[in-house]
Amino acid sequence: MTRTFQSMINGLRFPLSSFCQDIGTLKKVLLNSKKIDPSISELLPHLESHCYKFEKDTLKASHIKKVGVVFSGGQASGGHNVIWGIFDGLKKINPDGELIGFLNGPSGIIDNKFIPITEKLLAPYYNTGGFDLIGSGRTKIETEVQLTKSLETIKNHKLDALIIIGGDDSNTNAAVLANYLKTKKLNCTICGVPKTIDGDLKNAHIETSFGFDTASKLFSELTSNIARDCLSAKKYYHFIKIMGRSASHITLEVALNAKPNLSFITEEITKNKRTLADIVKEIAQMIIDRASHHKEYGIVLIPEGLIEAVDELNSLIKNLSSAIGQHGHKEALSHLNPSDKALFDKIPSDIQKQLFLDTDPHGNVQVSLIETEKLILALVKQYLKDHKFEGNFSAVCHFFGYEGRSCYPSYFDAIYTYHLGMGAMALAKESLSGYMVSIKNLEKSPDKWHLEAIPTVSMIHLEKRKGVNKPVIKKAYVDLSLARYLQFSMIKESLKTSDHYQFCGPLQYFGPFEDLYHPPLILQDRVRD
Amino acid sequence: MTRTFQSMINGLRFPLSSFCQDIGTLKKVLLNSKKIDPSISELLPHLESHCYKFEKDTLKASHIKKVGVVFSGGQASGGHNVIWGIFDGLKKINPDGELIGFLNGPSGIIDNKFIPITEKLLAPYYNTGGFDLIGSGRTKIETEVQLTKSLETIKNHKLDALIIIGGDDSNTNAAVLANYLKTKKLNCTICGVPKTIDGDLKNAHIETSFGFDTASKLFSELTSNIARDCLSAKKYYHFIKIMGRSASHITLEVALNAKPNLSFITEEITKNKRTLADIVKEIAQMIIDRASHHKEYGIVLIPEGLIEAVDELNSLIKNLSSAIGQHGHKEALSHLNPSDKALFDKIPSDIQKQLFLDTDPHGNVQVSLIETEKLILALVKQYLKDHKFEGNFSAVCHFFGYEGRSCYPSYFDAIYTYHLGMGAMALAKESLSGYMVSIKNLEKSPDKWHLEAIPTVSMIHLEKRKGVNKPVIKKAYVDLSLARYLQFSMIKESLKTSDHYQFCGPLQYFGPFEDLYHPPLILQDRVRD
Repeated sequence: MTRTFQSMINGLRFPLSSFCQDIGTLKKVLLNSKKIDPSISELLPHLESHCYKFEKDTLKASHIKKVGVVFSGGQASGGHNVIWGIFDGLKKINPDGELIGFLNGPSGIIDNKFIPITEKLLAPYYNTGGFDLIGSGRTKIETEVQLTKSLETIKNHKLDALIIIGGDDSNTNAAVLANYLKTKKLNCTICGVPKTIDGDLKNAHIETSFGFDTASKLFSELTSNIARDCLSAKKYYHFIKIMGRSASHITLEVALNAKPNLSFITEEITKNKRTLADIVKEIAQMIIDRASHHKEYGIVLIPEGLIEAVDELNSLIKNLSSAIGQHGHKEALSHLNPSDKALFDKIPSDIQKQLFLDTDPHGNVQVSLIETEKLILALVKQYLKDHKFEGNFSAVCHFFGYEGRSCYPSYFDAIYTYHLGMGAMALAKESLSGYMVSIKNLEKSPDKWHLEAIPTVSMIHLEKRKGVNKPVIKKAYVDLSLARYLQFSMIKESLKTSDHYQFCGPLQYFGPFEDLYHPPLILQDRVRD
Repeated sequence: MTRTFQSMINGLRFPLSSFCQDIGTLKKVLLNSKKIDPSISELLPHLESHCYKFEKDTLKASHIKKVGVVFSGGQASGGHNVIWGIFDGLKKINPDGELIGFLNGPSGIIDNKFIPITEKLLAPYYNTGGFDLIGSGRTKIETEVQLTKSLETIKNHKLDALIIIGGDDSNTNAAVLANYLKTKKLNCTICGVPKTIDGDLKNAHIETSFGFDTASKLFSELTSNIARDCLSAKKYYHFIKIMGRSASHITLEVALNAKPNLSFITEEITKNKRTLADIVKEIAQMIIDRASHHKEYGIVLIPEGLIEAVDELNSLIKNLSSAIGQHGHKEALSHLNPSDKALFDKIPSDIQKQLFLDTDPHGNVQVSLIETEKLILALVKQYLKDHKFEGNFSAVCHFFGYEGRSCYPSYFDAIYTYHLGMGAMALAKESLSGYMVSIKNLEKSPDKWHLEAIPTVSMIHLEKRKGVNKPVIKKAYVDLSLARYLQFSMIKESLKTSDHYQFCGPLQYFGPFEDLYHPPLILQDRVRD
């Protein structure tokens, strides 16, 4: 009888760091102190600014009895292993400790919807993807009412710690909540765990968020599957949109892994103020060049954020949103300025519809729903026609996104997330509220990893959102001066006409550590403090 | 230093059948004789009708010195291992034997475009996906000119055997070529290897074509990734179109593996004469029922062939094609009958465009390009609006196809294809021209497999294509009276409201045989002769 994949992966065990083994006895040791921008410390005055590392101590009784955990925002592979790490960590600190999970995101805290997390409940979720054990959601704990209700929930449960697994916004909110609880003199430690497939929660202390590696590797595999098909059939271009919001971290990772013919990086588009016409021309010129080498196939990667990085498109979207908001759908078009109107007229009718009809109740265009890959393809077709291209050009569009957010975590993410959960418990034990878990040295094997605690407030700056200054964690964009992009820019031109596709293969879990442990390339872009 | 997946997979070795080890000494033994339809034997009078098995004999000198191989039609994972099997088999039969590969499909034979296949050339392709070693193509060797030119090529090379790796049409053409060579008294053995991801080349002798298992497993994995995301975010419906032409073998396999909420099987639609309205209603009713259980998410599988299985759509497509052919694009719409016109008017404009504009030069609608999943979604949205559905309904569309045709073969396909290649050499050695390789007992481990040779002509019947009777291999549709469908129909209703998703995980290659060897479920549908 063959075992199911689910039962095989449930049984998978991997190497652990020494801090993981010592978690019950770790004590914090001051590493250094961060300067906090006065505008931020004014908003969040009760949060600490010291960074800590951890050292092994003798086993001491801990105050930790009950801990809560919540997922916040979009899915990322490895979330269940974070909870597994928290659970195991808690049991090492206090064998009688209780863990509860708040349901369907932060709204579960506000409304006190929760389940107890037991070993039995957790067992089938070991090493699995998704957040389905307790669900996730996008509600934010921001308003006074939400903060008060959250405080009530925490008080009722007598929670000693609440661990929030989320991205930049969720971790900002975790810091806001930590500050609020301190003003109310409630002793509950709020810790954040860095999660997002987009890779944009990253700085001198967060080497990478979890889920990024899995999504990048899955999309690399799928891209390279299509590259092999391309090379075999020799008759299609594939235009592939890659999830990842405004930053192009995932696209860059896929570009370096699978080596498709042409990959756009939004940060490069923004820096060089590239126009839509210019992007369309670059693709069309590659098609023309390849045709002269008898290659009528190829692969083009389009990051999800491209649509907002190109000035003309961004201006059209903004002006259209505001025209719809002010004049309604019927009149909006007649209020566009001539350049926006000219661009709108060039766009195929189905994409026009996505721009024009699928707006939210305030008239805002829903950028994530726009099929940018089809828009670009339509414009490329028009360009080729206008330039009397005589070769064959057939294209297929794809969007890689949802299939990479909840799949089984990569070997890297499976290990990393378990350690993040364990690390969160070390922070909780040392009452480090308003802190994020930071694990350093990820490019090496776990026995060389270090655990640190970083004050979230040190990552926060003020940013204008809808006209109002808000404290938020600074998003990390692809740094065009660092290793990954430089490596990409060196090979970019050569990929256009030669086919240097790399065939990445599916994620593997069984075999020697050296064959399984492939950390993401984004680690090469680490900036030391 | 970690190894790349490519280098790991190149080093993978797997268990071999005993016939594989004995290939150099096998001799044919009569098994039985097939009755050939007189209308077919009239068309292909020189082809034999005996079935053979193989037995170990003493090693004898073989006449085989030079062999050709070609891929024909769409990609299917494992093709390179077929060539590897042929190569190893040839070397066992005659260490000085030469293998050449014809380039880019059967046109390579007609135009004598080829490359010598050496061990050095082949080495990096072991266990890889795609047909990129020599390419593939859809040209058919049919006309007198094409047959004559192919004969010239075979003569020039003094080929002792030509192995054609293809689907139903390609294997029909292989039989036509075998018959033709016999009329010309040219001694070159033409053997066929059953390939197609669609699973529709299958009968009492062909348990499954290669590539089917890989595509089904990859699409099952991706579907279950999305199911997990669905269950975590709880806010989207996913409408997933699955490649596979007119038969629904792949969709059924995915339905049984991943257990999404609702899967359509074209054979069921055809049998029950289900209408488009009826299909839309079934989906919408499920959405309404699930909403009453507070579930505003789910997964719907739509087989590629659905569009041709639904009468109204099929009629619209046929009548529109003929109206465009007769009256041109401008006038076509005014020549549609009222029911076709009414359906056309209900279809969203972008899909109308796909129906109406993307026609081939003869006015034929390109069915494979139509986004059926979006068409169905639009009609479901309209139904929910008409029925004043008050819940939330957001949906995302997907198409799984190209990513599953050229990926690394599943462990099953990797082993099966190597054996198919070896088997083809056993047929060639025994001069079995016009035959297909058949391997029996695939649900068991390779040491229990049997090799047989089946006359392709026994699978051929006459079929009307574009008004003309043509000899073709009978396509296998999903049999609604057999195990797989019965299993599906038993659970179908319960999947709608309960979420029994199975999370399939990525293909694995390393570990114990029992964990890796998962033959496709289609083997349960075998019909004995």
